[in-house]
Amino acid sequence: MIRAAVVGASGYTGVELLRLLHRHPEVDIVCLTGDSSAGKRIQDIYPHLQGIYNQPVENTDPDLIAERADFVFIALPSGHTGSIVPNLLKKGLRVIDLGGDLRLPGDMYSKWYKKTPVPEPIQKQAVYGLSEWYRTEIEKAQLIANPGCYPTATLLALLPLVEAGAIEPDSIIVDAKSGVSGAGRAAALGSVFSEVNENFKAYKVNHHQHTPEIEQQLSKAAGKKVVMTFTPHLVPMTRGILATCYARVSAGWTQSRLFDLYHSTYEGKPFVRIRPVGNYPQTKEVTGSNRCDIGLSLDDRTGRLTVLSVIDNLVKGASGQAVQNLNIMAGFEETAGLDEVPLYP
Amino acid sequence: MIRAAVVGASGYTGVELLRLLHRHPEVDIVCLTGDSSAGKRIQDIYPHLQGIYNQPVENTDPDLIAERADFVFIALPSGHTGSIVPNLLKKGLRVIDLGGDLRLPGDMYSKWYKKTPVPEPIQKQAVYGLSEWYRTEIEKAQLIANPGCYPTATLLALLPLVEAGAIEPDSIIVDAKSGVSGAGRAAALGSVFSEVNENFKAYKVNHHQHTPEIEQQLSKAAGKKVVMTFTPHLVPMTRGILATCYARVSAGWTQSRLFDLYHSTYEGKPFVRIRPVGNYPQTKEVTGSNRCDIGLSLDDRTGRLTVLSVIDNLVKGASGQAVQNLNIMAGFEETAGLDEVPLYP
Amino acid sequence: MIRAAVVGASGYTGVELLRLLHRHPEVDIVCLTGDSSAGKRIQDIYPHLQGIYNQPVENTDPDLIAERADFVFIALPSGHTGSIVPNLLKKGLRVIDLGGDLRLPGDMYSKWYKKTPVPEPIQKQAVYGLSEWYRTEIEKAQLIANPGCYPTATLLALLPLVEAGAIEPDSIIVDAKSGVSGAGRAAALGSVFSEVNENFKAYKVNHHQHTPEIEQQLSKAAGKKVVMTFTPHLVPMTRGILATCYARVSAGWTQSRLFDLYHSTYEGKPFVRIRPVGNYPQTKEVTGSNRCDIGLSLDDRTGRLTVLSVIDNLVKGASGQAVQNLNIMAGFEETAGLDEVPLYP
Amino acid sequence: MIRAAVVGASGYTGVELLRLLHRHPEVDIVCLTGDSSAGKRIQDIYPHLQGIYNQPVENTDPDLIAERADFVFIALPSGHTGSIVPNLLKKGLRVIDLGGDLRLPGDMYSKWYKKTPVPEPIQKQAVYGLSEWYRTEIEKAQLIANPGCYPTATLLALLPLVEAGAIEPDSIIVDAKSGVSGAGRAAALGSVFSEVNENFKAYKVNHHQHTPEIEQQLSKAAGKKVVMTFTPHLVPMTRGILATCYARVSAGWTQSRLFDLYHSTYEGKPFVRIRPVGNYPQTKEVTGSNRCDIGLSLDDRTGRLTVLSVIDNLVKGASGQAVQNLNIMAGFEETAGLDEVPLYP
Repeated sequence: MIRAAVVGASGYTGVELLRLLHRHPEVDIVCLTGDSSAGKRIQDIYPHLQGIYNQPVENTDPDLIAERADFVFIALPSGHTGSIVPNLLKKGLRVIDLGGDLRLPGDMYSKWYKKTPVPEPIQKQAVYGLSEWYRTEIEKAQLIANPGCYPTATLLALLPLVEAGAIEPDSIIVDAKSGVSGAGRAAALGSVFSEVNENFKAYKVNHHQHTPEIEQQLSKAAGKKVVMTFTPHLVPMTRGILATCYARVSAGWTQSRLFDLYHSTYEGKPFVRIRPVGNYPQTKEVTGSNRCDIGLSLDDRTGRLTVLSVIDNLVKGASGQAVQNLNIMAGFEETAGLDEVPLYP
Repeated sequence: MIRAAVVGASGYTGVELLRLLHRHPEVDIVCLTGDSSAGKRIQDIYPHLQGIYNQPVENTDPDLIAERADFVFIALPSGHTGSIVPNLLKKGLRVIDLGGDLRLPGDMYSKWYKKTPVPEPIQKQAVYGLSEWYRTEIEKAQLIANPGCYPTATLLALLPLVEAGAIEPDSIIVDAKSGVSGAGRAAALGSVFSEVNENFKAYKVNHHQHTPEIEQQLSKAAGKKVVMTFTPHLVPMTRGILATCYARVSAGWTQSRLFDLYHSTYEGKPFVRIRPVGNYPQTKEVTGSNRCDIGLSLDDRTGRLTVLSVIDNLVKGASGQAVQNLNIMAGFEETAGLDEVPLYP
Repeated sequence: MIRAAVVGASGYTGVELLRLLHRHPEVDIVCLTGDSSAGKRIQDIYPHLQGIYNQPVENTDPDLIAERADFVFIALPSGHTGSIVPNLLKKGLRVIDLGGDLRLPGDMYSKWYKKTPVPEPIQKQAVYGLSEWYRTEIEKAQLIANPGCYPTATLLALLPLVEAGAIEPDSIIVDAKSGVSGAGRAAALGSVFSEVNENFKAYKVNHHQHTPEIEQQLSKAAGKKVVMTFTPHLVPMTRGILATCYARVSAGWTQSRLFDLYHSTYEGKPFVRIRPVGNYPQTKEVTGSNRCDIGLSLDDRTGRLTVLSVIDNLVKGASGQAVQNLNIMAGFEETAGLDEVPLYP
Repeated sequence: MIRAAVVGASGYTGVELLRLLHRHPEVDIVCLTGDSSAGKRIQDIYPHLQGIYNQPVENTDPDLIAERADFVFIALPSGHTGSIVPNLLKKGLRVIDLGGDLRLPGDMYSKWYKKTPVPEPIQKQAVYGLSEWYRTEIEKAQLIANPGCYPTATLLALLPLVEAGAIEPDSIIVDAKSGVSGAGRAAALGSVFSEVNENFKAYKVNHHQHTPEIEQQLSKAAGKKVVMTFTPHLVPMTRGILATCYARVSAGWTQSRLFDLYHSTYEGKPFVRIRPVGNYPQTKEVTGSNRCDIGLSLDDRTGRLTVLSVIDNLVKGASGQAVQNLNIMAGFEETAGLDEVPLYP
């Protein structure tokens, strides 16, 4: 049995970890922390957990955590990792950070997040936790930079193409749409129901902090620097991301060959499903589940490929992928605790 | 292992059974039928099931079902039970009917459903499947009339009070609100998104067919005829029912005594949670789960009690309760396959 | 031309006043104030007003307001009236307060709002602005206590019955449901999209501050003290209120006689529509409009009457009724600026 | 006064015409027709119109229409124009067709709509009713092909750029998102609330019939054939379209120069608003109004321009633009009957 702690238990990714780990056969949640909610019991903050969890949220104390836990999930907004994680690593804990503080090198982090980056050695130690692509590194890692939600959906769609040279990397445009839970549980005007409902909009146009994260991975796969356009939008729904990805195909790539590429890339990967020709995924088809569904369409008229990728932003886009990484790190079945059927309707 | 068949697999209660039973340790789904979808594979009708189920939907043939299954779930709209169930019973199968055809005596059924009732012996044989109240009868039953969604929420709230004489039965008013999935997957004008969204309304005012179902059970508990007012409303959401129940309290009943009544009534019942004083349940707190949460408030100013009861209409209001009944009938752990944490947010 | 000022221009009722008054043939908006937004232009706070309004939001200065305006709308949350209104009255302005500070006598206000009440003479001077019922008083008033949203829907439904002795006042239960805009534009956890969406709940059970406001008016009409049960609920939609009102009918009142009562009560009242027998109003049918639609059903089985009343909480429930009151006060056509067709779908 | 008839009065674009024309100072609605609803009164089909309209829906009879009306709006789904419009034209009526039957030459129409096109002379006679771009032709036209909703939002955003040579036309990608009312009032599985709510998806990927309509106009403006990628998506909301348009800018075009282009293009056009730099429009900001709001962002990192264009699909995307065209044809103020403030929230 793995003993796990959740730091930031009262945010949405935190409470989603509690949902997924509750049925995990090999994980015990031994410690919940979060400074803003410290002193309350988790089931009083979240009544839906009454009779399921009975645990206090404590102050975040790395020594206390180290005594009790083997693994730690950091489910906080960006900007807090630097003050918590180094200590945990020193004590030999394995850490999975769901926030953005470890994903980018310091200069890029400062530029896009406008915050002070973590110390360089810590950032360099972190393994990017895109489970389907970095399994070997994740297995051995002590520290995981769990990917952002938009990057997860986008990279699962684009990495096969970039790696195989099937598309022109400088033609990539990603138009992404997300439900509102991605903004977290904070009471902010932009999340107020009457502002979001019956409304649709783009935000952080040409300057969302997931852009460098996506580009970094695509550049790695392409073997050269890739810049792309990434436009996030807010959908009046709670969960779900659809990334509509556009690129020009390289010579010699037919729709048939592209489907073969996706099928072989994701063969044996339990959470990625490739849709049949002419079938396009909807966000609802993965709700509550750790799956990523991908569909594609090559337009002969334009020579342009459209790839559609859907995930649940709180599951495969955050907490589900974190649990998947823990499974890989601990040598468990990759699907342990993650075998839910999507909630439909 | 129990071998189960689902008749009407392509409706919402059908596909919800598939979700719940997928993880049930003791149940195998051996047969899916449904005449309107026959010939298609269930994962083509519901792409979210790709990689999870790979089964055809076949025509409903009681002989075929009898060969393969031990238990049968009937997940069809009302009006079909009479043509399918008698045959299955003859062959010794145990049947759980999620529709309304078995819940009422023939004359009442005709009056409220405006359809031809099933043969009287069949209706008399059916045990009303309100799990927390009829466990003993359910254990031994061959045929279950699974309760309606509104009645489940309402009766779990009111039966303790009526049975204990804590309220005046002729003062009962139930104002109920449901998400749209209760209407099923049919394409009807009343379910069209643009008609339902940003809208709230009452329907079937003073003539919803769940009224006699509720009254029948309350009358039984009261030992005399009870009539009440039941007003359903449509909420622009997919899942969830909140029943707000009003009644005058009988002399000698304080809020404290009422709480004790609920706690003792539902002691050891794993799916009913009583909220602390001053805490009222929201439908979201049971989404995707088989729970029923109850909160109450006694108003000294009026001597009137308000009881709030929430369920997920597709789970405790239909398919979850059906699985719970199967567990009771088969002697399984009552919570088998039903241990989900509610999906929040 | 009337010169009008709006205090609290940047809240939802404030911006709704701007929408309605824009087309009002006799009203000019000469002054917008609001301390939290002072210094910004209204069209920068609300981009939908670009090209329609070009006005700064200024600090709330009664002297400044008095120089420029004849009428003042106070569109602030409760608790502010006492510091602004007395001054405006002294200067001879006519004031319509959309908040709750003037609706109740001081002791009742303190008890339910838990705030310091306004000076007694001010409260006593205020005329309750339920347009269809207090027209004569409103015509001559200098100060209007604009009714709350829930009370408007409820009273328009119940006052005819109570006044005519058609129901037993001690049997009244009102189960009300509102869209989220009623909570205002404040960033609060309870208004966060991910908390409200796909959710339904009751709140302030047995202690909502609209209860005494409703009881006060019903008591007046009944000629004796009336207490009732009022339960508000939150609907995952932006606009709309449905009040489902229950009461036992008095002897001699048939459904036919009840319909006659409503028709004669609201004859010539342009904003109240009585639905035909068997036809029940939906909130969407009055969206964006100042109308109140009423439907009713008398259940012979129980002798209980159900009345359904819908309004748009921001229009007839607040800003529309305020404009209607201004029209009455200024001697304008009652429908001036309020002749919109509801937005459907 | 213009006497107008609405054919297809009971669909959403039909009832939206009724809303807009109700306050039009120069238009009388003299005739409502629609074969599926013939015999009913419009206010019985749409109770929100009670007390506002009192008119029967009659069978569509061109002779009858010709006797009573000067202008005719055809608000039917595609495929019906050919059987109605030629007759009306012969009788000298002026006709505005809100459907797609007149927008494309026959061969293109057959290919994309998979229906029989109208006779060629009729199609050639039709003037494309994009008001801001074809005013001169519209003024003199007897027959208007009112543009599709997606094309309206897209073309208002892209035509200035293509006409000025500011972008490379072969780089155009339009990722569009629409509310559900665009699908009309038909009861179809794809419009069922439980299927659409809490869901987001693309549809008709690379084969939506608005693609050739957009390309036709862009080709005209470019002076050469333009093909582009157009991907529509369904948003869980009732009204609104956001078109996110991508293209590579041509040499010499800075963000400043682009803003100047938009400002000069739409100078004096009352319904198109250009947002300030860094400000992006949301669909809610034009709800219920005939406006189109445009925002843009030039990304120096990629040399790619992102243009965001929002409209209300039922207003500027259909019925509002139809009324705007009638105003132009009849020599009225262009804003007559279209001066609403958007509904917010």
